[in-house]
Amino acid sequence: MMYRYALCIEYCGTDYCGWQRQANAPTVQQEVEAALARLDKSSPTLTGAGRTDSGVHAARQVAHCSLARHWDPFRLCEALNAHLRPAPIAVLEVAQVDHLFSARRSAVMREYRYRLINRRAPLALEPNSAWHVRPKLDHDAMLTGVKLLLGKHDFTTFRSAHCQALSPRRTLDEVFLEVYRLPSSTEITFTFRARSFLHRQVRSIMGTLVQVGLGNWRPEDVKIALEARDRTACGPVAPARGLYLWQVYYVPDPFSRESQ
Amino acid sequence: MMYRYALCIEYCGTDYCGWQRQANAPTVQQEVEAALARLDKSSPTLTGAGRTDSGVHAARQVAHCSLARHWDPFRLCEALNAHLRPAPIAVLEVAQVDHLFSARRSAVMREYRYRLINRRAPLALEPNSAWHVRPKLDHDAMLTGVKLLLGKHDFTTFRSAHCQALSPRRTLDEVFLEVYRLPSSTEITFTFRARSFLHRQVRSIMGTLVQVGLGNWRPEDVKIALEARDRTACGPVAPARGLYLWQVYYVPDPFSRESQ
Repeated sequence: MMYRYALCIEYCGTDYCGWQRQANAPTVQQEVEAALARLDKSSPTLTGAGRTDSGVHAARQVAHCSLARHWDPFRLCEALNAHLRPAPIAVLEVAQVDHLFSARRSAVMREYRYRLINRRAPLALEPNSAWHVRPKLDHDAMLTGVKLLLGKHDFTTFRSAHCQALSPRRTLDEVFLEVYRLPSSTEITFTFRARSFLHRQVRSIMGTLVQVGLGNWRPEDVKIALEARDRTACGPVAPARGLYLWQVYYVPDPFSRESQ
Repeated sequence: MMYRYALCIEYCGTDYCGWQRQANAPTVQQEVEAALARLDKSSPTLTGAGRTDSGVHAARQVAHCSLARHWDPFRLCEALNAHLRPAPIAVLEVAQVDHLFSARRSAVMREYRYRLINRRAPLALEPNSAWHVRPKLDHDAMLTGVKLLLGKHDFTTFRSAHCQALSPRRTLDEVFLEVYRLPSSTEITFTFRARSFLHRQVRSIMGTLVQVGLGNWRPEDVKIALEARDRTACGPVAPARGLYLWQVYYVPDPFSRESQ
């Protein structure tokens, strides 16, 4: 008899080689599994909803594990955070879920956000939390360009050569843009929602959109790149530090109880 | 003949012993003066609008200096940032100003913001950018309490024993609250506007307001504490890491040209 739990996890990806366990490099999955091993002799393994890359952050990654004994979710959450300290990883919520729940396969929608700061001066506050772009970006042109990617397409242009997905077809359901104007800088955040994403898909799209924002590409060139179905048609991939796995959606939501 | 410049400066205060130059401790003023000394043989000194304490951040500190030679403001800004690298200090803008301009005395309004994150789990993303408070805060009660401080008062209760201001009377012109609800946490930001502030005034007020938010104090106890004019009537002072010198206002604004 095992008990299954879903964990909602926030982390700063800067000092990790991504989510996924690796032989000789620190990863977020390993850190959380090490904390679990302190609580459960069966050495539980985690399955995450998204395999974030090196340097990519998460606001609400979701992962599940099976434990040999029953835990009160609140106490499990507190115990994990105690063992994780001082790593930049926090378990925000824990919920007991049934044995059919999979953080990866049960996800109905994933949301990524990409944050750009557009200004001349270097970033003194939280330089690893956004991509700093110096020349002025035309964010309206970027939005026009990204809208051409909505819907179901072959995203071969916008996936890594190492992507292991069987099909390059994905449906980009929603994309939206938030612009926050400050006196000497502009913060631009793009939100992407899809059932699932290809490897490096958001960073490939963002790198291309920045070319549009800089005026090097026209918005309609994004569509031409998509239709080329050719990795070499993609703009330079955007850096990891601006990317956040923001939320993973399930029906029903295992964390639906009010936590605060 | 000297030329006077106003500098708008962003910094992360975490690793500095505040703004003000000190004999044996790293400060923001020293770092920027060291960058200025690389550009101007007269070893220019800076006068800042606000003497932020150890650990306090700035989004737009303003300081002025006088230089022996004329500089194009844009080039001076770029040169300072080049010399400041990799310090977590960025000069956002530079403007030439007349000799009567003083970053300190010409300021007509100062704005500070204090950021709280209210949740159980530790902060994995940017732990030094806010005060993390675990028990649930009643932010409506906090707002009711802080409104009792609006207007002109003797703020003796809410100033440091080391405050050097001649008078404890200050006018708190505006205060407002922004609440950002996320699934597992609530971000609460208080904005304070006054012509000038006393030493530790905002952190003293915030520490007291958190007592109200926790239910340890009633909102009206804030007024009782104010009227006591007694430092010992103040709640525990809030930590520096949540505080930002957000903006300093001048008429006319030396940085009014569109920078982006």
